[in-house]
Amino acid sequence: MSKKKVALIIGAGDCLGSAIARKFAQNGYHIVATRRRGDLDNLVTEIKNAGGVGEGRHSDARDEDEVRNLIADIEDNIGPIGACVFNVGGNVSFPLQETTTRVYRKVWEMCALAGFLMGREVITPMLKRGQGTIIFTGATASLRGASGYSAFAGGKHALRALAESMAREFGPQGIHIAHVVVDGLIDNPNTKDLFPDLFNQKPVDGIINPDDLADIYWDLHKQKRTAWTFEVDARPYSETF
Amino acid sequence: MSKKKVALIIGAGDCLGSAIARKFAQNGYHIVATRRRGDLDNLVTEIKNAGGVGEGRHSDARDEDEVRNLIADIEDNIGPIGACVFNVGGNVSFPLQETTTRVYRKVWEMCALAGFLMGREVITPMLKRGQGTIIFTGATASLRGASGYSAFAGGKHALRALAESMAREFGPQGIHIAHVVVDGLIDNPNTKDLFPDLFNQKPVDGIINPDDLADIYWDLHKQKRTAWTFEVDARPYSETF
Amino acid sequence: MSKKKVALIIGAGDCLGSAIARKFAQNGYHIVATRRRGDLDNLVTEIKNAGGVGEGRHSDARDEDEVRNLIADIEDNIGPIGACVFNVGGNVSFPLQETTTRVYRKVWEMCALAGFLMGREVITPMLKRGQGTIIFTGATASLRGASGYSAFAGGKHALRALAESMAREFGPQGIHIAHVVVDGLIDNPNTKDLFPDLFNQKPVDGIINPDDLADIYWDLHKQKRTAWTFEVDARPYSETF
Amino acid sequence: MSKKKVALIIGAGDCLGSAIARKFAQNGYHIVATRRRGDLDNLVTEIKNAGGVGEGRHSDARDEDEVRNLIADIEDNIGPIGACVFNVGGNVSFPLQETTTRVYRKVWEMCALAGFLMGREVITPMLKRGQGTIIFTGATASLRGASGYSAFAGGKHALRALAESMAREFGPQGIHIAHVVVDGLIDNPNTKDLFPDLFNQKPVDGIINPDDLADIYWDLHKQKRTAWTFEVDARPYSETF
Repeated sequence: MSKKKVALIIGAGDCLGSAIARKFAQNGYHIVATRRRGDLDNLVTEIKNAGGVGEGRHSDARDEDEVRNLIADIEDNIGPIGACVFNVGGNVSFPLQETTTRVYRKVWEMCALAGFLMGREVITPMLKRGQGTIIFTGATASLRGASGYSAFAGGKHALRALAESMAREFGPQGIHIAHVVVDGLIDNPNTKDLFPDLFNQKPVDGIINPDDLADIYWDLHKQKRTAWTFEVDARPYSETF
Repeated sequence: MSKKKVALIIGAGDCLGSAIARKFAQNGYHIVATRRRGDLDNLVTEIKNAGGVGEGRHSDARDEDEVRNLIADIEDNIGPIGACVFNVGGNVSFPLQETTTRVYRKVWEMCALAGFLMGREVITPMLKRGQGTIIFTGATASLRGASGYSAFAGGKHALRALAESMAREFGPQGIHIAHVVVDGLIDNPNTKDLFPDLFNQKPVDGIINPDDLADIYWDLHKQKRTAWTFEVDARPYSETF
Repeated sequence: MSKKKVALIIGAGDCLGSAIARKFAQNGYHIVATRRRGDLDNLVTEIKNAGGVGEGRHSDARDEDEVRNLIADIEDNIGPIGACVFNVGGNVSFPLQETTTRVYRKVWEMCALAGFLMGREVITPMLKRGQGTIIFTGATASLRGASGYSAFAGGKHALRALAESMAREFGPQGIHIAHVVVDGLIDNPNTKDLFPDLFNQKPVDGIINPDDLADIYWDLHKQKRTAWTFEVDARPYSETF
Repeated sequence: MSKKKVALIIGAGDCLGSAIARKFAQNGYHIVATRRRGDLDNLVTEIKNAGGVGEGRHSDARDEDEVRNLIADIEDNIGPIGACVFNVGGNVSFPLQETTTRVYRKVWEMCALAGFLMGREVITPMLKRGQGTIIFTGATASLRGASGYSAFAGGKHALRALAESMAREFGPQGIHIAHVVVDGLIDNPNTKDLFPDLFNQKPVDGIINPDDLADIYWDLHKQKRTAWTFEVDARPYSETF
């Protein structure tokens, strides 16, 4: 067993997930970072090089058994989960008539079903200890639909409903549930390659630095329970909203 | 082919769906009322006895092929769909830890996937004509999560995101998309039997009369396009909110 | 005394106020239409030519005594106020640093203080009868601030808070309070002259026809109390939102 | 001139204002704490005893000249204002019919006009430097009206509209504007005396500790501009919402 509390980051495949993992590692947490497939070694190396402790796990956030086993294994063999972040994406856009049922369902599974599975499985050990933090990553689409976004906005709205329902059910039992509305582009090598023009037209600091955003997750986690935040938004200074 | 325009009511198994069907029938629409199973004959008889025209169809609103065939059949063999109402329910409540993945998925399929299928299939013939009304029935849970409501609030939030996304995509093409937030108990024989105490403690007029609520759907449909409503709430005068 | 119920329209100087007055007159109400100064005769003539009954009053909606006397006089000498519409404007825009304290205060007085005075004075006779409708005209700025709109958005936000507070205090006592969020340009000779380009670039039906919007006010008023609306939005089909 | 940047706290008469002042003093700011009248010496002594620098000023936040002179004097004689917090209260409740015009106006002047004066006067020196933080204290009543709260909710809604309008006008120019929605009782000797029963029925940690809430203000101020928050809520873990 680790001597540290665990911070579990589900969906650590992007820049934000990695930055949150590094931030919690710097602050003494044992990191378990998951993604369905793809590299996690770079992140773990970064954490270790900075003096932290962490490991990566390939796990499908949409699979009930995998989520259940992941969380049971951490609690049994690594340490108590003190903080848990849901950061699975799913941002796609199609005109409604070109949105297949398969896409509509898959986006919901990534955004909402996976969040539900994580929340339901991690809440039980946290309730036993009467403490813990669960943070869900939202987006502009959590608050408003938009042309072409019926699938993504649907998934993100459902995730926010989950977070709000959990906050109302479990806040009074000592579990801090929060929802971060990310409103703006996050600096990310893939995105830069895919949308070079959009990136280039932004001013200096006009794209979210994942480390700056990760500070907000850490600030939420360290809040005292007499003054907990449920929802916070974050955007670059230059972003219109 | 009918000489009338069609009003399609998906989810006409409850008092509200029936009241909306009767209201549109009184105003000259040929009604097609659907539910997955159970009686539709009483509703059709009521409509006919009042001098209207209508028919019932058993159709599973969560089944892509059934929805596609239903709408194609109406357009080919009955008449052009001028108004379309999504009224499928799914109001259940469980503590999060007792919410099975099956329930979480099924409630989303009823609330959101079914709405998506209806919206996507009916929009194509409406766009060809450059007119039509699509109304989605929402609930208090469309706007806020609550302890025990992660599944239902998730489904209803996703449905609202769909409605909003569709309004933004198709409003400028002449299709009126609206969302009705129903905030209160609807008078309903089943509900009365299930919750006699809750019903009995309400004052006179403290429970929604389905016919009064159906007026709001009709008012939305007859709005002129220089002043369209996207969202409207409805509750009994005595309801706290 | 009139044999009709009275509909009081405060702020009938623009196209919308006039259209609401005509709509209620057509439906059998004795109209009292007010504005601070300027012509009311054309409106009264229109109402009478259409077979209705109505009169104009010059009254400053921001003056406590004038509002009190106006409402007392109507109740004493014309008839019971069955419906009351607050339609005073105040849409101005200045960069914050150019917004004088005088402007900030005056816009609030027009938008919010005047609404408060009307609401407080008309609620007493309505409560005695246990019925009545009070409708407040809102705007996009009721829901969101915007650069240059600290004064107008402040006034309109405060008016919405008043409407919501009144709905929660007086709804259970049988008074229907509603708030209409108007999101779009209203067709208006003055506006056309002031902003010819903005008007000309709108498509057919892309500007609100005041008569179409007035239908929404009438629809609200005739709602049955088992299914009352507090808030409804209205915009042209082509308006982005 | 001070060698430190100034943090100006307008409305430092209560526990929250004092806690914010102490927090910024601990982090190296020269504090200027204002209230209209009453003691400020205790706060200044606390700050100095903890090794900080600060001073109190009696100043009427609703008086244009006093606010202008206060800010000009600080900028000319103490130092550049790096952070500015608006914390003036005004929480009163009356049934609408007992709300005098004087009360309705005064509450708006305290909540909204005073915030406008501070915002308008402090923005000019901040814009010259291209940086600065302005935080407005909101309340539950910033987001919803309630029976008996037409005045307070009106003032707080207007303040939120101001904050949002300022964020949209000045964020892109490098000024961080934020709004904190405080949802719950704040621990405060006066309140304890006034509402002993309400205080006593709260669980441990069920009342906001001003120092915990002040952390949120500091967290907002130190955010990097690639990830700024406009709005954040805060409530005790046990608070229903």
